[in-house]
Amino acid sequence: MMSTRHVYNADAQATALFQNNMAYCIGTGRMGLALQEEYQQQMRMVQEEIGFSHIRGHGLFCDDVGIYWPVLDQDGNVVEERYNFTYLDRIFDNYLKVGLRPFLELGFMPKKMASGTQTIFYWEGNTTPPKDHDQWARMIKALLLHLCERYGREEVVTWPVEVWNEPNLRGFWENADLDAYLKLYDVSVGAVKEILPQMRVGGPAVCGGSQCMHFIRTFLEHCRDNKVPVDFVSRHIYMGQDPHRDGRYLYHAMNKPEVNIREAEDTRELIDSFPEFKGYELHITEYNTSYNPFCPTHDTVYNAALIAGLLAKMGDTCASYSYWTFGDVFEEMGIPDRVFHGGFGLVANGLIRKPTFWTFEFFKRLEGKMILREEDCLFVKTENGSIRGVMWNLEKEEKKIEVHFPGMEGKWGVVTRTVDMENGNPLRIWHEMGEPASLTRDQLNILRQSDIPHTDAYSLISDEKGICVEKTLMANAVVYVEITPFKKEESLGYHYPGICE
Amino acid sequence: MMSTRHVYNADAQATALFQNNMAYCIGTGRMGLALQEEYQQQMRMVQEEIGFSHIRGHGLFCDDVGIYWPVLDQDGNVVEERYNFTYLDRIFDNYLKVGLRPFLELGFMPKKMASGTQTIFYWEGNTTPPKDHDQWARMIKALLLHLCERYGREEVVTWPVEVWNEPNLRGFWENADLDAYLKLYDVSVGAVKEILPQMRVGGPAVCGGSQCMHFIRTFLEHCRDNKVPVDFVSRHIYMGQDPHRDGRYLYHAMNKPEVNIREAEDTRELIDSFPEFKGYELHITEYNTSYNPFCPTHDTVYNAALIAGLLAKMGDTCASYSYWTFGDVFEEMGIPDRVFHGGFGLVANGLIRKPTFWTFEFFKRLEGKMILREEDCLFVKTENGSIRGVMWNLEKEEKKIEVHFPGMEGKWGVVTRTVDMENGNPLRIWHEMGEPASLTRDQLNILRQSDIPHTDAYSLISDEKGICVEKTLMANAVVYVEITPFKKEESLGYHYPGICE
Amino acid sequence: MMSTRHVYNADAQATALFQNNMAYCIGTGRMGLALQEEYQQQMRMVQEEIGFSHIRGHGLFCDDVGIYWPVLDQDGNVVEERYNFTYLDRIFDNYLKVGLRPFLELGFMPKKMASGTQTIFYWEGNTTPPKDHDQWARMIKALLLHLCERYGREEVVTWPVEVWNEPNLRGFWENADLDAYLKLYDVSVGAVKEILPQMRVGGPAVCGGSQCMHFIRTFLEHCRDNKVPVDFVSRHIYMGQDPHRDGRYLYHAMNKPEVNIREAEDTRELIDSFPEFKGYELHITEYNTSYNPFCPTHDTVYNAALIAGLLAKMGDTCASYSYWTFGDVFEEMGIPDRVFHGGFGLVANGLIRKPTFWTFEFFKRLEGKMILREEDCLFVKTENGSIRGVMWNLEKEEKKIEVHFPGMEGKWGVVTRTVDMENGNPLRIWHEMGEPASLTRDQLNILRQSDIPHTDAYSLISDEKGICVEKTLMANAVVYVEITPFKKEESLGYHYPGICE
Amino acid sequence: MMSTRHVYNADAQATALFQNNMAYCIGTGRMGLALQEEYQQQMRMVQEEIGFSHIRGHGLFCDDVGIYWPVLDQDGNVVEERYNFTYLDRIFDNYLKVGLRPFLELGFMPKKMASGTQTIFYWEGNTTPPKDHDQWARMIKALLLHLCERYGREEVVTWPVEVWNEPNLRGFWENADLDAYLKLYDVSVGAVKEILPQMRVGGPAVCGGSQCMHFIRTFLEHCRDNKVPVDFVSRHIYMGQDPHRDGRYLYHAMNKPEVNIREAEDTRELIDSFPEFKGYELHITEYNTSYNPFCPTHDTVYNAALIAGLLAKMGDTCASYSYWTFGDVFEEMGIPDRVFHGGFGLVANGLIRKPTFWTFEFFKRLEGKMILREEDCLFVKTENGSIRGVMWNLEKEEKKIEVHFPGMEGKWGVVTRTVDMENGNPLRIWHEMGEPASLTRDQLNILRQSDIPHTDAYSLISDEKGICVEKTLMANAVVYVEITPFKKEESLGYHYPGICE
Repeated sequence: MMSTRHVYNADAQATALFQNNMAYCIGTGRMGLALQEEYQQQMRMVQEEIGFSHIRGHGLFCDDVGIYWPVLDQDGNVVEERYNFTYLDRIFDNYLKVGLRPFLELGFMPKKMASGTQTIFYWEGNTTPPKDHDQWARMIKALLLHLCERYGREEVVTWPVEVWNEPNLRGFWENADLDAYLKLYDVSVGAVKEILPQMRVGGPAVCGGSQCMHFIRTFLEHCRDNKVPVDFVSRHIYMGQDPHRDGRYLYHAMNKPEVNIREAEDTRELIDSFPEFKGYELHITEYNTSYNPFCPTHDTVYNAALIAGLLAKMGDTCASYSYWTFGDVFEEMGIPDRVFHGGFGLVANGLIRKPTFWTFEFFKRLEGKMILREEDCLFVKTENGSIRGVMWNLEKEEKKIEVHFPGMEGKWGVVTRTVDMENGNPLRIWHEMGEPASLTRDQLNILRQSDIPHTDAYSLISDEKGICVEKTLMANAVVYVEITPFKKEESLGYHYPGICE
Repeated sequence: MMSTRHVYNADAQATALFQNNMAYCIGTGRMGLALQEEYQQQMRMVQEEIGFSHIRGHGLFCDDVGIYWPVLDQDGNVVEERYNFTYLDRIFDNYLKVGLRPFLELGFMPKKMASGTQTIFYWEGNTTPPKDHDQWARMIKALLLHLCERYGREEVVTWPVEVWNEPNLRGFWENADLDAYLKLYDVSVGAVKEILPQMRVGGPAVCGGSQCMHFIRTFLEHCRDNKVPVDFVSRHIYMGQDPHRDGRYLYHAMNKPEVNIREAEDTRELIDSFPEFKGYELHITEYNTSYNPFCPTHDTVYNAALIAGLLAKMGDTCASYSYWTFGDVFEEMGIPDRVFHGGFGLVANGLIRKPTFWTFEFFKRLEGKMILREEDCLFVKTENGSIRGVMWNLEKEEKKIEVHFPGMEGKWGVVTRTVDMENGNPLRIWHEMGEPASLTRDQLNILRQSDIPHTDAYSLISDEKGICVEKTLMANAVVYVEITPFKKEESLGYHYPGICE
Repeated sequence: MMSTRHVYNADAQATALFQNNMAYCIGTGRMGLALQEEYQQQMRMVQEEIGFSHIRGHGLFCDDVGIYWPVLDQDGNVVEERYNFTYLDRIFDNYLKVGLRPFLELGFMPKKMASGTQTIFYWEGNTTPPKDHDQWARMIKALLLHLCERYGREEVVTWPVEVWNEPNLRGFWENADLDAYLKLYDVSVGAVKEILPQMRVGGPAVCGGSQCMHFIRTFLEHCRDNKVPVDFVSRHIYMGQDPHRDGRYLYHAMNKPEVNIREAEDTRELIDSFPEFKGYELHITEYNTSYNPFCPTHDTVYNAALIAGLLAKMGDTCASYSYWTFGDVFEEMGIPDRVFHGGFGLVANGLIRKPTFWTFEFFKRLEGKMILREEDCLFVKTENGSIRGVMWNLEKEEKKIEVHFPGMEGKWGVVTRTVDMENGNPLRIWHEMGEPASLTRDQLNILRQSDIPHTDAYSLISDEKGICVEKTLMANAVVYVEITPFKKEESLGYHYPGICE
Repeated sequence: MMSTRHVYNADAQATALFQNNMAYCIGTGRMGLALQEEYQQQMRMVQEEIGFSHIRGHGLFCDDVGIYWPVLDQDGNVVEERYNFTYLDRIFDNYLKVGLRPFLELGFMPKKMASGTQTIFYWEGNTTPPKDHDQWARMIKALLLHLCERYGREEVVTWPVEVWNEPNLRGFWENADLDAYLKLYDVSVGAVKEILPQMRVGGPAVCGGSQCMHFIRTFLEHCRDNKVPVDFVSRHIYMGQDPHRDGRYLYHAMNKPEVNIREAEDTRELIDSFPEFKGYELHITEYNTSYNPFCPTHDTVYNAALIAGLLAKMGDTCASYSYWTFGDVFEEMGIPDRVFHGGFGLVANGLIRKPTFWTFEFFKRLEGKMILREEDCLFVKTENGSIRGVMWNLEKEEKKIEVHFPGMEGKWGVVTRTVDMENGNPLRIWHEMGEPASLTRDQLNILRQSDIPHTDAYSLISDEKGICVEKTLMANAVVYVEITPFKKEESLGYHYPGICE
């Protein structure tokens, strides 16, 4: 069995806060799906138990949200431009009610405004430029005015705006036409700033390898050279290497976290290489292991451990990183036909928490000074003096992790919460059940009871070297640890009945 | 390590249904507490996840429910007998809404109707006979008429009625006066039958040892000799042996289940020894390990295992047995000052399920032919062909239990759900936390996540001897087992990503 | 002011039960919309406060429900027929949870199964025959097998099945081809009966005038001559005369109720003219005033009064009549852009009850012997002796209605609940507010407080002619009346403080 | 018919904000009742629809909350002082969850700490001084330390503290002993300030006429002369004149509002006459019409109008005034036996809003500059330019109120919401029903539908004199008026179908 041994930095005074930006934003299936009840239930669960600040997804301008709603004459020509906010209000009201602010992605193209017929996904989002860029600008302005009227300028101005999605990919933007994107960006940022000059706008929301860096560089040069406003840079990061397909499913080997951390760092450096943009925020507006919603890895404890590796370091370079996505109400490649199918969600349909849900629930608690960060664990000291940490095992075998806390004296209580192959892993139970597509109520209950980490608790008394927490992690395990001063509350005559017969 | 080996009775045709009457009735703290929100929340949880049919507790006529509400003159004399059903309606409406019918216990005595001042409990229930037995009878009749008007005769007539509680104990009935009890019984049954002749009435609701049998015998002789109607016999059973007190807490060694099963059998035989009453229903209207609400055993896995031993056999002789009680909203010995304090409830305050909750959740599923019953397990075959069982370990050490199912051919899926020292045992976590009296929200969440059994699943392929389920149980473990035909639902290209890196 | 005077039939013994089939079925927007949260909220409201037994709508087989889910090869050919019940289960689980059984309408055509490209509605339901009728039959059978597995045969067999929708209209069925419909019917009924011979199947679900009667006659002849099973006949009824369009809206004069009652009677007579089908059930699977979801009349008190006229008599000839629709989550002609827009629903978006909601709430209470039915009122005597009635005014002016109850002696309590221009009419308030498209929270609250009937109560003492209820109704008012024996419950010293200063 | 004519002060620039302190605090039945579910439901309703900031009631230290929980020896002597916060935590958690901060009233006396046996109320609160004032001080300190630990010092320090209740009445304080009160005050304020020096403490919480002023004066002199800290003065105000009793009920004529406004002003002047205390806050910690929970006036529209008269002016002199009480879960004079019985609540049992509920809902909206205040109306101009007002009629006949708004030009929308004998008056409907004690579900629904104001809306176009709102109010009517700029939102082709046949 492997083992590692770490010693925390006793000089917490000297250490910096852990840059934990994991809760700034979360991804979602297309906006129109937010009308669904199952979507809302999953969102409420995620917000109640984890709690993100912003939400970002596609489809704001797609026809199922129905914002662009012109009056047409009998030949189909636009007689009057009108906008329909019936669904948008319902969606945004619900976001705000659970504490989620929109991270607006301007896209895709309403059919009646589109210059072409190219669409993407089962739900057929049109990915061509507008026929008339003025129409596009007017729609953006009408949207912002409506939002200000409904939610107040002070509120709306805090929402970040990103122009389009992955324009460097042909499916998402006709011909992956960079010039056409820059034009769209210019028109969009202009429209936004006309209404709300303080609103933060960014791009280019690209995905993928070196071409992606080229896209960003050109974008920044364009902004610099043409004095086009830009407030932040955005891109996407996925860990999946070259895939192979089997039926409806996609499988691939995954990068080590450091590979993708490096991608973020490189992007950071690229931005900072522009004197005008040095220190501008970098937002990873999508990330995950695989970029495919039918990749079985998403549902596994392996996924949970990989994401832990990212969450430990992404905040060093990125103002946000938005896990793609919070739930499995998602239709890009069609409607899922089984509860576990490799969807992106932290929560599976039927309100079953997946292992990665817990990676987020654990990291959310890591507020305070970072007293230890290694390749397999991260610990902070909170304001009130307790220690909190997450440990993860990316090896293919068991691994024992020892963490020493010199100088911590007296008696301490330790709580651990473990997700691994045997605990908090409903996928395994479902698989052993025969992978039923439709769940009976009984099966659903069993899966819901198997989606919780295993909790353990014990106490430690310091010796001259302080205290030491040690834990053997199964492959892919993720473990939350909390260490607090142990205080026994007495009740006259009460004995803990551990062996009470 | 101990081990046992059992072989099930392949001839399911020949076997009888398991007499599983565990869900007929559940106990509750005094009626007036049913007004409380925490009580209602615990009740809804128990009904949703287990589901009992009736509910029985004390205090129907006590002054906090306030049914007896006479108009008095200035000297305190009753000018007009009136009744106040404000609280009773609220309580019974809520019972019926969650599927619970009242098992009415007639008692205790409204202060203004009482002949004496003796009270019992922190909440001071008056336990003396009525000043005027006619007043008592009129109150019963007024109550039944009101219930019929509100809920319908057809409904109310199905509710069993028990006269008073534990009249063989001095605390519960002044001087434990048997003659006075018989008089109260006669008047009560007369009042009930005058309004609803079909309503089932019984007694004597006694508690304790040999004196208790004498009380039952005399009661039955009295009914027989005086042609007093009686529809069933009721008594209580507790497993606690001579206790010792420490501070607020009571500790005692517990009987083996067979000791209390024998008590039930003896009572059964006593009833059947009266030709007139042969086969009359025996209702155990209270049972538990300890009879004290500050006995720490109640919160343990040991309690869960002991109760499993009872549930396996009580139905052989008893029409019902009502666990005392569903929740920890309970005040007989005062208000609890810490979440775990040895209360009777299946659910602790804060909606934390105790281990014994699961004993009930597991046994509730045992419907069908009893194909195996041993001292440590019980299995049934359900109508649709699946096998369900519960195993428990009352030894002080680990025990391996093997169950063989000859004749079961092909592939079978097995799901196990385990409660033991390490799983579904929030008491242990709370103890390790330092036994905090008031829980923070975080502590509460951790305890709620530790109150769930550990779920496991796997599949078996038969050999020439059929299949065999084996499981090693920690001391005091209780395990639910479900065995169903294994059917794999295929999805083209899907591979279970158990080792997916 | 107009006035009418009616005398009820004192000989209630001689009178028949009111044939009140209004609650058998309710219409809904397309099945896929049932995934939406607003839809579910409106449905729960309607079920809680009115309570229907079945629900019928379009789109069961449309691609947004996604049942037909074949595996395709790279050329798009079907490699394997598979079905996806993810969304269907969610939808039907929710229906059954609120007491609604599906009245299955088999339609429209999955794109991958369709022979043509004709679609209908904003949501593009394909309305062409199947490429391969065997595929269609296999899909029906797979659906029924799945439903039986999930909900049980005993349950599913009670759900009526209707083949397609309005095949006599070109938009709904390519070329309105009668022969093609008969073929589809034959195949469909064959598939259903192969799986569940007891399931009731009917058609032809036609809409409109004389051509519609021809369609029914031919359909019945076809079934008779070819021994094709048929269990009931279905058609639609709308009250709107020739419309004129203005912008997005449709306006038309409405028939008097007797015109449409006559349509039902004619259909009844047509069915009964077939000796083989005499007495077969007639289901009006859609009805309303206008057939257009942007007809402002739907939101008015006028609509409420017209529907009252229908509900009073439709049960004489029809086993059911399904109001089209329960709510305003509806997209056939696009997404509504303002809360009131003339949608079909009993409930407007935002959970605002429209006047017609109350027509249903009132008629739902009319169970018992019909002691009076006139052109402006209907009264029943319930089992427990109370009188309940609904009065409505279809005149364009105020009208006083007097109803005499000879023989009713003593003191009676009367409760009236009135919907008219001034009460229970949120449309008027919204109009006076300036017809805001997006409602603020305050506006929504005001509208929700204006959607309730005005309640009044008083008591009557009989004279030698019994009692008389009289009420002046504004134009289009609908009034519920309940008359019960008056019993005063005294409380010593309590005076009603009507003028208490 | 009477009529009045008012002209608003067009110079809104010059006018001051309306001192609207009505929402600062609300009264409640004794703390222990907060455990009840009906109490919580009423509280949630009041908070959601009105929204108060603090809550004050009796019974914090009474034995049903059970805070003082000493360990006793066999003779009943205190061996160890301990405290039990099980119920308190549950109560305060729930208050804070709905946005209510405790306005702590220190009282009454735990039985085990009491020097005497005098009790008050059905629920027997002990109203004698402590046996040992140090014990009392330790309990206060233990309480505050616990609260700080649970809710944080920053939070707890904002809660006002009042010492005891109505010590000038013999029932509430043994012998109404002023010296004993001053001693209790000194000890209490000392204990509080020892733990939280910033916490605001006040008294003397007196009730009644001239004696009450004497009590306040002596109290302030005592504080001044002895340098005892005091942060505010509190007293109670009731409008009921000499009562007469009939059975369980109390009836009395009521003061005009100006009489009680004058009481507040006198108290204000008394405080300000002390140079040391000039400008110190005056809190009316209880007020209502009658001080008896079985006074039928509480349930009437007359009560609603009287309270409107108070709310219009109390803020001129008082920092808060706490209506006694929010709901009818209340037991001081015993358990109510009928839904309407003259209880204090804004909400009757069964969640029925009484007329006075709306007085509060209306006044809550009055935020802004006070542009008009007369004896029968009050109008403010809000920040966004709309006008809001309340009108009320305390005459015994109809009254027409005209309000002129010079200078308001253009088209304005007016919404009115009316509570009077015919609207929002469930008491009248219940009375006409025969005053049923226990409500059936149907009766409850009818009452719930009759507890809503009548909403009307219309628009006005200014003439040279601006606009004028006029309204005829029935006796005791209370009317909310809102005037906003009228903006018509067009939808092409939409006609309001007011007379649409």
